[in-house]
Amino acid sequence: MTTIDLNCDMGESFGAWTMGQDAEVLRYVSSANVACGFHAGDPQTMQRTVAAAIERGVAIGAHPSLPDLAGFGRREMRVSAAETHALTLYQIGALAAMAHAAGARLHHVKPHGALYNMAARDRTLADAIAAAVRDFDASLILVGLAGSELPRAGERIGLAVAHEAFADRRYEADGSLMSRNKEGAVIDDVDVAVAQAIGIASRGEVAAAAATLRLSADTICVHGDRPNAATFAQRLREGLERSGIAVAPMAAGSRA
Amino acid sequence: MTTIDLNCDMGESFGAWTMGQDAEVLRYVSSANVACGFHAGDPQTMQRTVAAAIERGVAIGAHPSLPDLAGFGRREMRVSAAETHALTLYQIGALAAMAHAAGARLHHVKPHGALYNMAARDRTLADAIAAAVRDFDASLILVGLAGSELPRAGERIGLAVAHEAFADRRYEADGSLMSRNKEGAVIDDVDVAVAQAIGIASRGEVAAAAATLRLSADTICVHGDRPNAATFAQRLREGLERSGIAVAPMAAGSRA
Amino acid sequence: MTTIDLNCDMGESFGAWTMGQDAEVLRYVSSANVACGFHAGDPQTMQRTVAAAIERGVAIGAHPSLPDLAGFGRREMRVSAAETHALTLYQIGALAAMAHAAGARLHHVKPHGALYNMAARDRTLADAIAAAVRDFDASLILVGLAGSELPRAGERIGLAVAHEAFADRRYEADGSLMSRNKEGAVIDDVDVAVAQAIGIASRGEVAAAAATLRLSADTICVHGDRPNAATFAQRLREGLERSGIAVAPMAAGSRA
Amino acid sequence: MTTIDLNCDMGESFGAWTMGQDAEVLRYVSSANVACGFHAGDPQTMQRTVAAAIERGVAIGAHPSLPDLAGFGRREMRVSAAETHALTLYQIGALAAMAHAAGARLHHVKPHGALYNMAARDRTLADAIAAAVRDFDASLILVGLAGSELPRAGERIGLAVAHEAFADRRYEADGSLMSRNKEGAVIDDVDVAVAQAIGIASRGEVAAAAATLRLSADTICVHGDRPNAATFAQRLREGLERSGIAVAPMAAGSRA
Repeated sequence: MTTIDLNCDMGESFGAWTMGQDAEVLRYVSSANVACGFHAGDPQTMQRTVAAAIERGVAIGAHPSLPDLAGFGRREMRVSAAETHALTLYQIGALAAMAHAAGARLHHVKPHGALYNMAARDRTLADAIAAAVRDFDASLILVGLAGSELPRAGERIGLAVAHEAFADRRYEADGSLMSRNKEGAVIDDVDVAVAQAIGIASRGEVAAAAATLRLSADTICVHGDRPNAATFAQRLREGLERSGIAVAPMAAGSRA
Repeated sequence: MTTIDLNCDMGESFGAWTMGQDAEVLRYVSSANVACGFHAGDPQTMQRTVAAAIERGVAIGAHPSLPDLAGFGRREMRVSAAETHALTLYQIGALAAMAHAAGARLHHVKPHGALYNMAARDRTLADAIAAAVRDFDASLILVGLAGSELPRAGERIGLAVAHEAFADRRYEADGSLMSRNKEGAVIDDVDVAVAQAIGIASRGEVAAAAATLRLSADTICVHGDRPNAATFAQRLREGLERSGIAVAPMAAGSRA
Repeated sequence: MTTIDLNCDMGESFGAWTMGQDAEVLRYVSSANVACGFHAGDPQTMQRTVAAAIERGVAIGAHPSLPDLAGFGRREMRVSAAETHALTLYQIGALAAMAHAAGARLHHVKPHGALYNMAARDRTLADAIAAAVRDFDASLILVGLAGSELPRAGERIGLAVAHEAFADRRYEADGSLMSRNKEGAVIDDVDVAVAQAIGIASRGEVAAAAATLRLSADTICVHGDRPNAATFAQRLREGLERSGIAVAPMAAGSRA
Repeated sequence: MTTIDLNCDMGESFGAWTMGQDAEVLRYVSSANVACGFHAGDPQTMQRTVAAAIERGVAIGAHPSLPDLAGFGRREMRVSAAETHALTLYQIGALAAMAHAAGARLHHVKPHGALYNMAARDRTLADAIAAAVRDFDASLILVGLAGSELPRAGERIGLAVAHEAFADRRYEADGSLMSRNKEGAVIDDVDVAVAQAIGIASRGEVAAAAATLRLSADTICVHGDRPNAATFAQRLREGLERSGIAVAPMAAGSRA
């Protein structure tokens, strides 16, 4: 049976501020990427998010970021490889402690926002992140943009990697994501997004410009900050399952 | 042979700012309490400090703090037990990751500054800190002010604890530390401080007001921010060793 | 004609996180206390809030806080008078720049959260805040808990002060606010809260325990973080106006 | 008589950490760029630095930065023009409050670190900074890299600008600063640096590669974080004055 993971960024509240519909979204996804305090997620929010994921049987991942609360980790910063290694290791360790104290363990690591984007195209930073993951626990799965530098770095260093695709984003003919600045880059129609997810999960294909693109992916992202994220996650999961695709956490060595 | 631990706060630089004489002090102490990012210690500084401690064979401890960079963790904050548990766990996890990645493991936890002082007298906070340590790793030693609430909380929850004494601070007749606001609270004369350390380590006694006080301690603090901290550490170590007292990391169950 | 001010804390979003219903609430209040970056309110949020207040003709005040984003400025911290003076001055200056650049000027200063509470009972901190306000602009109105240390400190130093009362909080017989930990401390019934506001504004009286209390106030607080804050503000304003009470910014020297 | 300004970044301590030799350097420079809290400079440090500058009669400038304490404002971040305008205005306002409360007023604005470098080559950011300065006080002098986008942006918007040159940095033939990564980019020999400063101040010339370059400048930077910064500042000032060049704050409209 075909299997795909659905992942969502979570625990992105901070102190008195709330973000996302975590409790609802956790009913539909199989993996949670939990913010680690650098772009969102104070220590108590991390604890609560870990507890909620455990309760729903959702796999827990670290979601490390550049240190930028005011910018929510979305502003690229010129960080060195050494800085990147250190800040990634720090955040993984902090979240792993929360998971461990709650009787669970980490399953994967997916960088957040600007760090994710930089790691998709910059081999040096990708290597630094992969090394931090390996240095902490070589059995963790490293999640990155499908086909980009980050999963390549993970493979070079011997990690299991998961290639991530998007149900609600358009792709360019070269397999890259269409820039959000371009009209039509975000797929608002849930039915179209569900169909794209099914195509990716079942056939490893996605429509891009005039062509159909090969896109092999292990996990599909649910944007927790899109409107009605929980409904979107529900529709995705139901659509996938109706198409005979199981939703389950990505696993080391699972990729076809 | 009598044994005592010498501990010092370390890794209290932050970004472009440096503090302490870590490289020098590491030559004389047996335990390092490494700042974890909340009052000092950015991720790279943590890595460097851990590496330096490993090189010198010094036991590595977490030094968690209230979240207060501008106040260096010295300003008391009204935090709840739940907040305290979460922030302690977070910081221990972050430092443990640094130690683990470098091939070492944590040995102890000593709260910093205002958190240390609050935990010495507030049983609820002391319990929260002890629970965080136990939830992370029940084999870690919890270090607190000798005779105070923090080691009591550690014992209640089944942790090995270390009672901390000070070579360069005067004690009140009730065993508490004389307030820094009082004249003579800090012992500037290194010879007097060394003698006090020897008395504590060899006889479990300290002079206080007109009396001699019983003060059972497992570890003696070297203030890394005092002038000539490295020289002070050196004099302490040499004085103790000349008196037949070995300097070695505190150990679970070592206390007389 | 009787006049009272309605004030509300505003601009308490931060980066990607939003809080409050500022646009709606601004239709009903006469004064806005704008967060200055220490507990909430990044620079762009400050600019937007100032612009929105100007558009509605609402008086702009600074809402300085202890430095505590994770705790939203609600955790008391042991700060010195010198620290308090400096951080108050810093935040007033930052917000005044936003107002000045938008063609407006500051009207008042109301400390936030824990700083407000500490300043209500601690004369030293109250004096430090009052001095910072005076040092920046002696024509600003200092807003504090009615009858507390903060307005007293303002008066001592020659500032115009505004005494603040609450429509939706119960009072103790001594005029202090009932602790939120006590049952019934918060008045959920909007009609009761409106009646309390009218009593304060028109007769200078509030019900407290078995007695009726004299409570002279210049401004009534609308809690921006209560559910349906905008509806609450609307009901307050309409109720006051129907009772013949005009809603207008507090003014220097306006108090009966 | 030829006149040149000597400026130095100051107030770059933060909480318990100290940086620089401000008290010494203030004896020799004519302008101080005071950190505003985003890369360094807590509110009390700002107050103390302003007071020290006033005592020495040194002109006070704001030294705004990207929000990056851990990176000391040296890491480039992808900030929008709107973010840049807001954070510049915020920091200028905060420092202006400190100056005003101490009976002084701001004289100039010089961006710090990565913001300075980005503003030297990015017209959009340069315009945003210049607009923030103008929106706060159109009589402030905007200081930027000689010949770069920042002074051009200032001139476009009607500000007085000061072109900054460096005594201890080598120049490329096109007038840009040689990258610090290149050998010889930093002039360690104080005599050579003093000679370069004199050449710039007296003849508007600097040696670059095989040529002599025209370099018109109003102010010369003293790096406060170089070893022996105070001695360097002293030697610069004495060298300039012995060559008949007066050291005095840059003034609006002073440039030849």
